[in-house]
Amino acid sequence: MREPVLLTPGPLTTSLATKTAMLRDWGSWDTAFNQLSASVCSDLLAIADAGDSHVCVPLQGSGTFAVEAAIGTLLPRDGTLLVLVNGAYGERMARLTEVMGRRVVRLTFADHQAVCPRRLAAALAAHPECSHVGVIHCETSTGLLNPLEQIAGVVAAAGRALIIDSMSAFGALPVLARQVPFAALVSSANKCLEGVPGMAFVLAERQALLASAANSHSLALDLHDQYVYLQRSGQWRFTPPTHVLAGLRAALDQYLAAGGQPARLARYQANAARLRDGLRRLGLRSYLAEDVQAPIIFTVHAPPLPGYRFAALYQAVRARGFILYPGKLTSCETFRIGCIGALDGAEIDQALAALAAALDELGYLPAAEVAA
Amino acid sequence: MREPVLLTPGPLTTSLATKTAMLRDWGSWDTAFNQLSASVCSDLLAIADAGDSHVCVPLQGSGTFAVEAAIGTLLPRDGTLLVLVNGAYGERMARLTEVMGRRVVRLTFADHQAVCPRRLAAALAAHPECSHVGVIHCETSTGLLNPLEQIAGVVAAAGRALIIDSMSAFGALPVLARQVPFAALVSSANKCLEGVPGMAFVLAERQALLASAANSHSLALDLHDQYVYLQRSGQWRFTPPTHVLAGLRAALDQYLAAGGQPARLARYQANAARLRDGLRRLGLRSYLAEDVQAPIIFTVHAPPLPGYRFAALYQAVRARGFILYPGKLTSCETFRIGCIGALDGAEIDQALAALAAALDELGYLPAAEVAA
Ligand SMILES: Cc1ncc(COP(=O)(O)O)c(C=O)c1O
Ligand SMILES: Cc1ncc(COP(=O)(O)O)c(C=O)c1O
Repeated sequence: MREPVLLTPGPLTTSLATKTAMLRDWGSWDTAFNQLSASVCSDLLAIADAGDSHVCVPLQGSGTFAVEAAIGTLLPRDGTLLVLVNGAYGERMARLTEVMGRRVVRLTFADHQAVCPRRLAAALAAHPECSHVGVIHCETSTGLLNPLEQIAGVVAAAGRALIIDSMSAFGALPVLARQVPFAALVSSANKCLEGVPGMAFVLAERQALLASAANSHSLALDLHDQYVYLQRSGQWRFTPPTHVLAGLRAALDQYLAAGGQPARLARYQANAARLRDGLRRLGLRSYLAEDVQAPIIFTVHAPPLPGYRFAALYQAVRARGFILYPGKLTSCETFRIGCIGALDGAEIDQALAALAAALDELGYLPAAEVAA
Repeated sequence: MREPVLLTPGPLTTSLATKTAMLRDWGSWDTAFNQLSASVCSDLLAIADAGDSHVCVPLQGSGTFAVEAAIGTLLPRDGTLLVLVNGAYGERMARLTEVMGRRVVRLTFADHQAVCPRRLAAALAAHPECSHVGVIHCETSTGLLNPLEQIAGVVAAAGRALIIDSMSAFGALPVLARQVPFAALVSSANKCLEGVPGMAFVLAERQALLASAANSHSLALDLHDQYVYLQRSGQWRFTPPTHVLAGLRAALDQYLAAGGQPARLARYQANAARLRDGLRRLGLRSYLAEDVQAPIIFTVHAPPLPGYRFAALYQAVRARGFILYPGKLTSCETFRIGCIGALDGAEIDQALAALAAALDELGYLPAAEVAA
């Protein structure tokens, strides 16, 4: 009877306090709303300790809108973006850059392998035309964590600018602007900050952003314009998702009260460890090795049984109150389970129990487990 | 103590039923959510009786995002858009088309004058390169209603395609696809449908949309891609604003239960008449003549007093529980009052009383009124 718990990496399960913050209408021109916007932006900057060097530009839409906006605004029209690709979101970044008519160089890695900083250094040496580098912090398509600090070091040493898609990592995995130099970091309300979907944001280096007028291929996605207007008026250029922003404000209040980034990471790490152990006990194999696995989402090999169908497993787990995530790999049959959202050990244990019961019902339990 | 009532044309005051529909988290991959999306799209098409000829493509972001997406997707890269400009939103449509690198011809009218269909016919004859025409249904910057049916007739007779920005009109003012031929009609959740902001939608002619692959300058704003993906999978391409969509579903339920478009229009007309009479009694002059005034939002001349400041009036009215909207004209000092949202005669009367008290307190009442 209860609403299902989402084991998906955004939209995810949010707290009731976050949802009830949406029970009010805000005038988007009102100073009370302007203050809400300003306080959210300032708290987001503080998470990366970036308030001196960077500005926060909120944007209507989903995370992809903000990735496109960051690249479209910061990359000069004749610039070239080197994209580090080891999964679907890296490939999407490359593709959206091409769609807007900019040049792309892809540096590709296997989807179970982290970006290699040495290969990146060699590629930058070979491609002096690449003014910017794009990287996915946590590749949500598998759950892989890229070595952000080392990558940022290589990019800075080569005098290039870094654009980070930290959609599914920001707020939980640490990113400090002084240790990880970046021109832009993109994330959204509905991932590790545990807000609801409908807006994203870019932490952009102030100087780089101010120098980027008229680069954008799009009015709606022009971050420079959005920033200048917000600075001058305190308002978003176009109608903001007022309720979504109020939800994010409430989510940030809870985030800060619980201890901020270290506490969020600790909870997700505990969830991840519990989930990993539980999956192992069920005889399910993780797709990634432990040293590249982020505590965000797991990719799990489907039980190697001829009759397996994800749709059946999904429904059987859903009937027990939990929502799984399909796999995003073309090379082999997998599914995904997230461990982010307003969840802790209790929900993870219930989810594992539901998964076990569903596998059992469907005859999907690996032989070892059935015998045990 | 109560939250203020918004007299602004979106975000606007929504019902509690609409807001409480946001108290649930939805998995964006789940069939329950897919059904929600499909039912919203089908109800939006039905409002224009367009289900046979058109499809509904929802889009993340604000209304401007969807206007840009519609033009960017439907206008060929080498096409030219003739934009009918008689206010700020017409000018915005022209500008965003130029930003994306397409050609624009502006046909401009004074901001208190409706688009003249005869001048449009002449412009189309003089500009055979204009494959598409863009028009604002209700110019929210003043509240002016353009003669949509006649405009659509001229455009169709000239064999061109019409793109309608019906942001602040759709759902209240009638638009029937058979009487008003259009290639695309753009609107958003948070205007006359009385949902919350965070998503918009385009009713697009099926054949025109299917023929528009690869026109778009943007991945995020590619309506063709969004539609094809939605058709194939039942899902939005990128994370949808799940709570906002659930709010819109609830708003549509209330809309249909109350009698749909004719009932919505009747309520807004009654609000508008009450507001117009009340403003007149206060000695305030409307900017527009009655024959071009839409029952959506009024532009009102500021009291012609030397000490007048909108900010003071805004605060004094706000202190009494109502939120006004600033003017958007550069030629003279005005402010705006909307009559859309979950409001009827009671709220309009209270708003007028609040306005009267605020004007009185500030010494802004025109002399006639003070004498009376
Ligand atoms: C790493 C990463 N990048 C980009 C996106 C795209 O975000 P959205 O679906 O909000 O457009 C996601 C979404 O899960 C993501 O995980
Ligand atoms: C006619 C019209 N067009 C476009 C817009 C822009 O919509 P948004 O602010 O949601 O981007 C508005 C907003 O009020 C409008 O009234």
